[in-house]
Amino acid sequence: MDLTHEIESFNVREAMYILDRSYRDFPLKTVFLAVVDQGVGTERRAIALDTREGYSFVGPDNGIFTLVAEELECEALVELSNPAYYYTNPPSRTFHGRDIFAPAAAYLSKGVPFGELGRKVSRPITIPIKPAILEENTLHGEIAYFDRFGNIETNIPGEFLTRISSLRGGLITVTIVNTDFPAHLHEAYGEVPPGELIVHTDSSGYLEIAVNQGNARQVTGAKAGEAVILKA
Amino acid sequence: MDLTHEIESFNVREAMYILDRSYRDFPLKTVFLAVVDQGVGTERRAIALDTREGYSFVGPDNGIFTLVAEELECEALVELSNPAYYYTNPPSRTFHGRDIFAPAAAYLSKGVPFGELGRKVSRPITIPIKPAILEENTLHGEIAYFDRFGNIETNIPGEFLTRISSLRGGLITVTIVNTDFPAHLHEAYGEVPPGELIVHTDSSGYLEIAVNQGNARQVTGAKAGEAVILKA
Amino acid sequence: MDLTHEIESFNVREAMYILDRSYRDFPLKTVFLAVVDQGVGTERRAIALDTREGYSFVGPDNGIFTLVAEELECEALVELSNPAYYYTNPPSRTFHGRDIFAPAAAYLSKGVPFGELGRKVSRPITIPIKPAILEENTLHGEIAYFDRFGNIETNIPGEFLTRISSLRGGLITVTIVNTDFPAHLHEAYGEVPPGELIVHTDSSGYLEIAVNQGNARQVTGAKAGEAVILKA
Repeated sequence: MDLTHEIESFNVREAMYILDRSYRDFPLKTVFLAVVDQGVGTERRAIALDTREGYSFVGPDNGIFTLVAEELECEALVELSNPAYYYTNPPSRTFHGRDIFAPAAAYLSKGVPFGELGRKVSRPITIPIKPAILEENTLHGEIAYFDRFGNIETNIPGEFLTRISSLRGGLITVTIVNTDFPAHLHEAYGEVPPGELIVHTDSSGYLEIAVNQGNARQVTGAKAGEAVILKA
Repeated sequence: MDLTHEIESFNVREAMYILDRSYRDFPLKTVFLAVVDQGVGTERRAIALDTREGYSFVGPDNGIFTLVAEELECEALVELSNPAYYYTNPPSRTFHGRDIFAPAAAYLSKGVPFGELGRKVSRPITIPIKPAILEENTLHGEIAYFDRFGNIETNIPGEFLTRISSLRGGLITVTIVNTDFPAHLHEAYGEVPPGELIVHTDSSGYLEIAVNQGNARQVTGAKAGEAVILKA
Repeated sequence: MDLTHEIESFNVREAMYILDRSYRDFPLKTVFLAVVDQGVGTERRAIALDTREGYSFVGPDNGIFTLVAEELECEALVELSNPAYYYTNPPSRTFHGRDIFAPAAAYLSKGVPFGELGRKVSRPITIPIKPAILEENTLHGEIAYFDRFGNIETNIPGEFLTRISSLRGGLITVTIVNTDFPAHLHEAYGEVPPGELIVHTDSSGYLEIAVNQGNARQVTGAKAGEAVILKA
């Protein structure tokens, strides 16, 4: 099944977050094929990651698996170096999704062992993330990605919010880079007037900045990876 | 299967019409999951509707089922109040599609009785519609929705057209709110020059206002729910 | 399965190329349903094409099958004139995808013989294509279509490139209509700086004009069907 084809072009960070927040809803033994790949055809490696928990991941070694590799226990990590499992040999220089990654995911789903697909390697590339930090009355984190409504998803766990303020319906200041926005603390979009900003814990358990019936991405001009600060 | 993910955000009316014009093409016993839900997390009810004809519907009680509830005979209407059938308990405040509606539709498709999912309720919320009216040489109705070509779909039955004029190829005046547009009466897009307006009975049996190889929505500036008048 | 719903509206040429570059990746006996159909409801024929190689094609007779009909050997070509295989009789004037083409494709996939669907006809409509020509140090062809990254796909076979220059990393002049653009000859996007034009053989074996991490369609203003010249 297709999880999404709506990742922004070249946005590895967005893919990393969406994969991380989605994989737990799939059954164990699911093989995830994740490709955002501006380095296709260059020296970046093609990899497959097996985890003790039972999920597997196939894609380019460009940081797209940073979060899942951090959370899950690595059982095997191989470079997809065995051309016997390519769609074409040599593979094209521009479409490894077709020529290397999709065949590898398909073979894994059929029970081919990871070790067959190529040589073992030690660790995947990771991309730097601004960690979520709780200070006195202030939360720091980064903008993870946007959903199709323009809601802003952060990497700040929802439980942090209760630590700085328990005042439901209160106000909070959202700072994105150098701009401040006032926002309501509420749990449902419909609890604030249309057009106003709301900060709440979204359905994945992280803080989301949204505009009721509007587009928070446009309203704030936020970009993925930017720093975000919430202050009570 | 996915019927559409292209309903305009927050446009319950569009979803109501598209659901109504689509359900008959599906086999009996189909369970329809329909979610346009700006009231998610507020007091609006989550419901499931069973009909004597054999179709079932699951979604928010916000008017999205106005037309199907009018046309089909209600066999059961329940509020999805039984958390035993939720994906998480408590459900999130922002994603009832995942936490309440999709599981309910899945359980119904597996044969779980409607009464298991929650308490019986009496009638769904309806949204007001400008009825299709035939006067002497004039048809009144409303703009139902737009397809992806920008064709304007109305709620005026195609057979009304033959009652005001049988002159195929003739001209008609389309009034949307306060603006008049001349249009051709024809049956196929290709029968008028590119760029000109055509009024005809579309494939669902309702009047459609279109521009041959163009975008009637943009040309007229029409909005869903606005009044439309056709005058011979 | 859905191959694509992202063909530009009314762009028969784009559909023709994408169908041609996709069908070989499907198993034999695949039935392809291809509909870009601005002539729906007019006198254009509805056809089904069977080929000796084992692929079948169903759609409007408007040139959409120009390339596959040229490459494959025709085993049968029928006009879909038998209303016994329509979804509704008479079919609507605006949605032959639903009323004629999809049912025909479904019946063919179930083993209904081509001859049952209608009368035999002699040859499909073709649309004119600027052929790919190799002159001394110059390649001529046309712009076939764009992918969703804005990469420009041409109808010039990749092997032509090696005939005008073997200098990998060299420069080439791309002329689209009357405008010249300098471009790098490279095989992978990542081999040129972001924002620069690259000409290379794409994953279908044809020359592609791309911008590393950018949109070549926007940068050049190219349109499908326009002449393209590459000069070493």
